[in-house]
Amino acid sequence: MSEIEKMLSGLRDASIRLASAPSDLKNSALEAIAHSLHRGSDEIIAANKLDLERSEAESLAAPLLKRLKLDSGKIEGLISGISSLVNLPDPVGAQLSATKLDDGLVLRKVSVPIGVIGVIFESRPDALVQIATLGLKSGNCVVLKGGSEAKETNRILARLITEAITSVDEVFDDTIGLLETREDVASMLEYDNYINLIIPRGSNEFVKYIQDNSSIPVMGHADGICHGYIDSEADIEVAIPVIVDSKTQYVAVCNALETLLVHEGIAQQVLPDLAAALKDKNVLIKGCAKTMQILPGIEPATEEDWKTEYLDYTVSIKIVDSLDEAINHINRYGSGHTDVIITRDRAAASKFQALVDSSSVMVNCSTRFADGFRYGFGAEVGISTNKIHARGPVGLDGLVIYKFLVDGEGHIVENYSGPDARAFKHEKM
Amino acid sequence: MSEIEKMLSGLRDASIRLASAPSDLKNSALEAIAHSLHRGSDEIIAANKLDLERSEAESLAAPLLKRLKLDSGKIEGLISGISSLVNLPDPVGAQLSATKLDDGLVLRKVSVPIGVIGVIFESRPDALVQIATLGLKSGNCVVLKGGSEAKETNRILARLITEAITSVDEVFDDTIGLLETREDVASMLEYDNYINLIIPRGSNEFVKYIQDNSSIPVMGHADGICHGYIDSEADIEVAIPVIVDSKTQYVAVCNALETLLVHEGIAQQVLPDLAAALKDKNVLIKGCAKTMQILPGIEPATEEDWKTEYLDYTVSIKIVDSLDEAINHINRYGSGHTDVIITRDRAAASKFQALVDSSSVMVNCSTRFADGFRYGFGAEVGISTNKIHARGPVGLDGLVIYKFLVDGEGHIVENYSGPDARAFKHEKM
Repeated sequence: MSEIEKMLSGLRDASIRLASAPSDLKNSALEAIAHSLHRGSDEIIAANKLDLERSEAESLAAPLLKRLKLDSGKIEGLISGISSLVNLPDPVGAQLSATKLDDGLVLRKVSVPIGVIGVIFESRPDALVQIATLGLKSGNCVVLKGGSEAKETNRILARLITEAITSVDEVFDDTIGLLETREDVASMLEYDNYINLIIPRGSNEFVKYIQDNSSIPVMGHADGICHGYIDSEADIEVAIPVIVDSKTQYVAVCNALETLLVHEGIAQQVLPDLAAALKDKNVLIKGCAKTMQILPGIEPATEEDWKTEYLDYTVSIKIVDSLDEAINHINRYGSGHTDVIITRDRAAASKFQALVDSSSVMVNCSTRFADGFRYGFGAEVGISTNKIHARGPVGLDGLVIYKFLVDGEGHIVENYSGPDARAFKHEKM
Repeated sequence: MSEIEKMLSGLRDASIRLASAPSDLKNSALEAIAHSLHRGSDEIIAANKLDLERSEAESLAAPLLKRLKLDSGKIEGLISGISSLVNLPDPVGAQLSATKLDDGLVLRKVSVPIGVIGVIFESRPDALVQIATLGLKSGNCVVLKGGSEAKETNRILARLITEAITSVDEVFDDTIGLLETREDVASMLEYDNYINLIIPRGSNEFVKYIQDNSSIPVMGHADGICHGYIDSEADIEVAIPVIVDSKTQYVAVCNALETLLVHEGIAQQVLPDLAAALKDKNVLIKGCAKTMQILPGIEPATEEDWKTEYLDYTVSIKIVDSLDEAINHINRYGSGHTDVIITRDRAAASKFQALVDSSSVMVNCSTRFADGFRYGFGAEVGISTNKIHARGPVGLDGLVIYKFLVDGEGHIVENYSGPDARAFKHEKM
């Protein structure tokens, strides 16, 4: 057995025990992590400084350096996030339904952890703490692979967390694994016998690579091509700030707006002021031919633009002749992530919410709200554009599944078969 | 665009419209299918006769011929199944939660169909009707590939169903696709842009082939290595009939028992009578060395037997020294499908149900109960040993996912950021 197989097989064994850990014990472990991060914050910051220095020397881009940095403010934020997590209800052990199949024969559906979850994430080392704590609260073992630029920080974080939880109870032994190389990731993808789910957080190409190279289920999102649609019945006073916020509040993230669709009946009224507001934020505007007539001097948008996630201060604008055209454009070019309609027309809003096939469909508010913290989930392991298991921001609820428990008194199926078959009662309890 | 891509792209477009179809309209379409199958039953039986004759000439095995046959009794059974489906609640459009994020900003989580589901099934043509109607009720488009031995029957069933639903409303146009060749299946596996989920029903090798050759999520099960464990505190009067039923009630199915574990403290008492009862049903017994001492003359079981799904009148028996050993054996060799403990000891039963990592974990009743109809789901599209999305028998609930709807009044994220950030309310509604 290779070292990595030993680790994964140990995590799989530990996951069986961790699944039954009581809520109080899991919360004690979370509190121990919070204390340990607090006590170890100097050590964390020192390790993070090594990562920052090396990454600067290797000319890592400024926005990535910003994400890499872990200062005492961010550490306190992580600790307060852990306190919120302690206060959330345990997602494991809930009775989801109970049915009396027949006298003395009862079916119960109860929530259980998924098992072992592999999470691969990029530069932000705070993600390690969030994922490890969400995993623990939901009774899952996690195997983590962070960005190599954060390796010193990740090592100390993993050590502090592991020491904290194993000092609470031995049920937490071997529940967190840390991988450090790309080779480890490649080899992890082969162990579908030990790992139940992979959550990759990173570039489009990276997520596709994982999907194409593993038979383990993958949850996450590749693209985030989010749309705004300004309907003919839009309130312009709502449209401009919401579109500007969706585009510019944080451009490098998956829930930022990339393409704006505008109904032709309102384009002339809204586009000049909107363009001015976007230019104030240094947004480059690309537009279709009709948009260029209203906003002379902008760059033309091509077919390629409708498929592009800029993750930058760039927006593409297209004028459409109807709500239907907007919906069709979004379902064709969108990535099923987050899209918003600006309108005062409730019927148009409802139609948009019904027919746009995305994980979050919004009316009159910023796409940037699509986030586990803002949705009230405490935190998120990521945003899913899958259409199975969990969709949109994924918090604790997305980290559990269920099992069926059937309790009988010697019941056999033969008695429910053939001409004299007993009938099932199927009464909800 | 190839013919198959045209079909799949049409299904994808239709899935957007079907997602919003009202419950009444879907139920009318289901009733139209029931009428159409009733009126067309002679035509179905005639087509089925062609399949049976050809398959007999090709020397198809007797159990498969039995599954292939569709007589008027089975057709009436399908029709009554459709009536039950009409009476089940619509799984689509349910509000799963609502949260007031802030004044005037509301998050709702509502159930929606998955989209387009590809289902590949073997000889039983009744599966086509069950899957098409479960798909319709849950608002999903389905693309179906049945066994080639049933091709005439499948063709007429698909035609009758399609004619019935499209005569009800045009929203049902292009919601069902039928594939007929293996090449079609191979090419379908590439269209992850049109298909959201694949459900393969068939042999272990076949399911593995699908998993290894598609990046589309796959739901189903490969093996069904189900275990019984007779605890030291078992009631022998319960143990014998339950184990015999689990093993012999229908041997060729995934929820039939394959391996029996017996506590050493009760083996001497229970095994001779149990072996006699199994032999009465013509079951071949293979056993570990300790079992062979109690049941002289049986065949030895090897390591390979613990990994084998016989799907036949064969059982392997192992004597264990503890509940823990039984649980470990099941988690190591089992397939996460269905396992049962026979015991009068509630603590042992609870421990077994908590620690056996299978989709159905039973106490004192037959593994053969693990089935969508018996669980009260109306019908099932299959049994899943996945640990995400849906587990165990999968009925309507397993065919939906959710989307988040956010309604605001011009809310922007910038106001919830930085030093003067507004706080979220996150009140459950």
